[in-house]
Amino acid sequence: MGAGYGGLVAALKLAKGTPAGSVDITLVNKYDYHQLVTQLYEPAAAAKRDTEVRIPLKKLLAGKPIRFVQDVVTKIDPKEKVVTLEGGELSYDYLVVALGSETEYFGIPGMKEYGMTLKSVDEARLIRTHIERCFAEYPLDPRPELLTFVVGGAGLTGIELVGEIADWLPRLCEESNIPREQVTLYNVEAMPSILPGFEPDLVAKAEEVLKAKGVIFKVGSPIVQVEPGAVHLKDGAVIQSRTIIWTGGVRGNQIVVDAGFETEPRGRAKVNEYLQAVGYDDVYMAGDCCFVLNEQGRPYPPTAQLAIQMGNSVAHNLAADLQGRPKTPFVPKILGTVASLGGRDAVGKVGNNYKASGRVAYFIKDLSQIRYLAKIGALMK
Amino acid sequence: MGAGYGGLVAALKLAKGTPAGSVDITLVNKYDYHQLVTQLYEPAAAAKRDTEVRIPLKKLLAGKPIRFVQDVVTKIDPKEKVVTLEGGELSYDYLVVALGSETEYFGIPGMKEYGMTLKSVDEARLIRTHIERCFAEYPLDPRPELLTFVVGGAGLTGIELVGEIADWLPRLCEESNIPREQVTLYNVEAMPSILPGFEPDLVAKAEEVLKAKGVIFKVGSPIVQVEPGAVHLKDGAVIQSRTIIWTGGVRGNQIVVDAGFETEPRGRAKVNEYLQAVGYDDVYMAGDCCFVLNEQGRPYPPTAQLAIQMGNSVAHNLAADLQGRPKTPFVPKILGTVASLGGRDAVGKVGNNYKASGRVAYFIKDLSQIRYLAKIGALMK
Repeated sequence: MGAGYGGLVAALKLAKGTPAGSVDITLVNKYDYHQLVTQLYEPAAAAKRDTEVRIPLKKLLAGKPIRFVQDVVTKIDPKEKVVTLEGGELSYDYLVVALGSETEYFGIPGMKEYGMTLKSVDEARLIRTHIERCFAEYPLDPRPELLTFVVGGAGLTGIELVGEIADWLPRLCEESNIPREQVTLYNVEAMPSILPGFEPDLVAKAEEVLKAKGVIFKVGSPIVQVEPGAVHLKDGAVIQSRTIIWTGGVRGNQIVVDAGFETEPRGRAKVNEYLQAVGYDDVYMAGDCCFVLNEQGRPYPPTAQLAIQMGNSVAHNLAADLQGRPKTPFVPKILGTVASLGGRDAVGKVGNNYKASGRVAYFIKDLSQIRYLAKIGALMK
Repeated sequence: MGAGYGGLVAALKLAKGTPAGSVDITLVNKYDYHQLVTQLYEPAAAAKRDTEVRIPLKKLLAGKPIRFVQDVVTKIDPKEKVVTLEGGELSYDYLVVALGSETEYFGIPGMKEYGMTLKSVDEARLIRTHIERCFAEYPLDPRPELLTFVVGGAGLTGIELVGEIADWLPRLCEESNIPREQVTLYNVEAMPSILPGFEPDLVAKAEEVLKAKGVIFKVGSPIVQVEPGAVHLKDGAVIQSRTIIWTGGVRGNQIVVDAGFETEPRGRAKVNEYLQAVGYDDVYMAGDCCFVLNEQGRPYPPTAQLAIQMGNSVAHNLAADLQGRPKTPFVPKILGTVASLGGRDAVGKVGNNYKASGRVAYFIKDLSQIRYLAKIGALMK
């Protein structure tokens, strides 16, 4: 269930790692395409076409012994071993849950109603067309809130999005004949610093680059309310804006919680060392809907990199189950994290020691994307 | 006043036709560009970039003895010979009024508030970005009104716009992963037929072509009310739609009416055979803000073609005044009218006898555009 990074890799690798005809694999996904979710900030800011971050599953699954069902999962009953879809039911011998995460709004009034999020190609397109329409409306009705844009959250997604939007603004201004000075772009973060988890010098570098592009940071500044046309901050300040994009929180998947799997308070499922759900040997999990702990006993942050490794491990262990071989404990290998800053700029860390910024970091980021596509390509063979 | 077809041609030709230093010419315009208004349906439907229908006046006036003032005319006092702008005042010896037309809403409740119009590049951009945002919103909130589009008015502008939108729909559907069948495009017209003034066989041809592209016509069907999300027709039918573009009426310019010039009920100014305002030998007029009668005693429809010829004649007669030569009465030469139907299709008539459709008509239309640009180019030399 789910053709994101974790689910797609699990399905492809399971098909590749088991003898033809020995396993009956069904992949369920809401869309008929796989989304390159880590790159959504690009179509959201018109830096890529939607079709560049959306790969048809027909293409990815061509010639594979994988049955694809385009449908939405509404319920899992792990006791009866049945999954309910909007359009029917499926029973299973083994289940792989890779349904991803949901947005955590922290109960901020109005955020869900009036904020936009960046978790799908569809949402990226809404952000892009919304911003374009704001620019188009302004010359005919020059209200400053139309040219004030707020990105809530300064994690990886928020920073990458705000950087790409900053790069886009000059082109938008030219098209609409609007001076750049009339446009304001905020990045608002509740925590005292941007890019939590990144080291201070990289954070400083990222801030410097983005400020030079005109981004205004409000850190240590929780959003307390969103209305149509206004974002209220904890210090009493009100930003008049028609555009708030919320990237400030993720939580597990409600379907996983409702199924009765053991979850932590944010709704992510607990799994054992083989990525099996607690109490269910026939349910494997991968990606953002579950969590594993690092050496310090804290959950690894949910990333594509981790989801891909989990998908890989799930397929390996599931095949081992089927073939009566011993399973292998999951050990994440975090190769590094790079944050794009728009254009060909980035900051990040590779391995434990190598820090990079500028074009080098961008190159590493690009490489990691190519590496993923190459992996998918290899699994497709 | 006005750098549309009439005003721009008048200014350029006057500069060219009078000895250097003998005349002091000021051109006032709201924008710092000349708009190719007859082509606005193309950027409105993403068939051209905004910059392709917007020519910087800096470029058009380079090296000319014409002072350009970017400002908005708010009042004309022909008795005191003073023009009031938002940013100041100008006095004159001779005035050329070429301020164009305004939209006639016929008092339809809600049309002005909730309808869009297509009279400027800015408005074309709003239409385009609005439609794109509707397509983006639909997958996230599938309400049919988001994919229902209404063009009110089946004159030249309405027909050309609806044809171009029809051609755009398949691309929008592909981008948003939406089946074409879920999109509805209406053209609603109060009169019993589309393209009033065109001959019946050309009307039939246009209808056939546009119906094949999926346009649904509602003729003889006045719009009686517009609400956010709904268009009410006289027969009681209600079209649920978030997009209504009104092309159904033009009237003269309110500034011209307020100045006390003699006007007909729709606000267009009366002019004599030399295109002088009634009672004011020092005020010439050109384009949609005034009218001249054809041999049957009915006003010529306001077209770019007519405005260009008027601008030409105004410059000629004004120069004659200055040089003490006799003026020449204005005699329009209507070369034909061609309506684009989207893509490379069109219908039209050239001269009195030659009717064309399909690519031939499109070619003629394209040619008339090139002819205009060539004329402007020649005046610039």
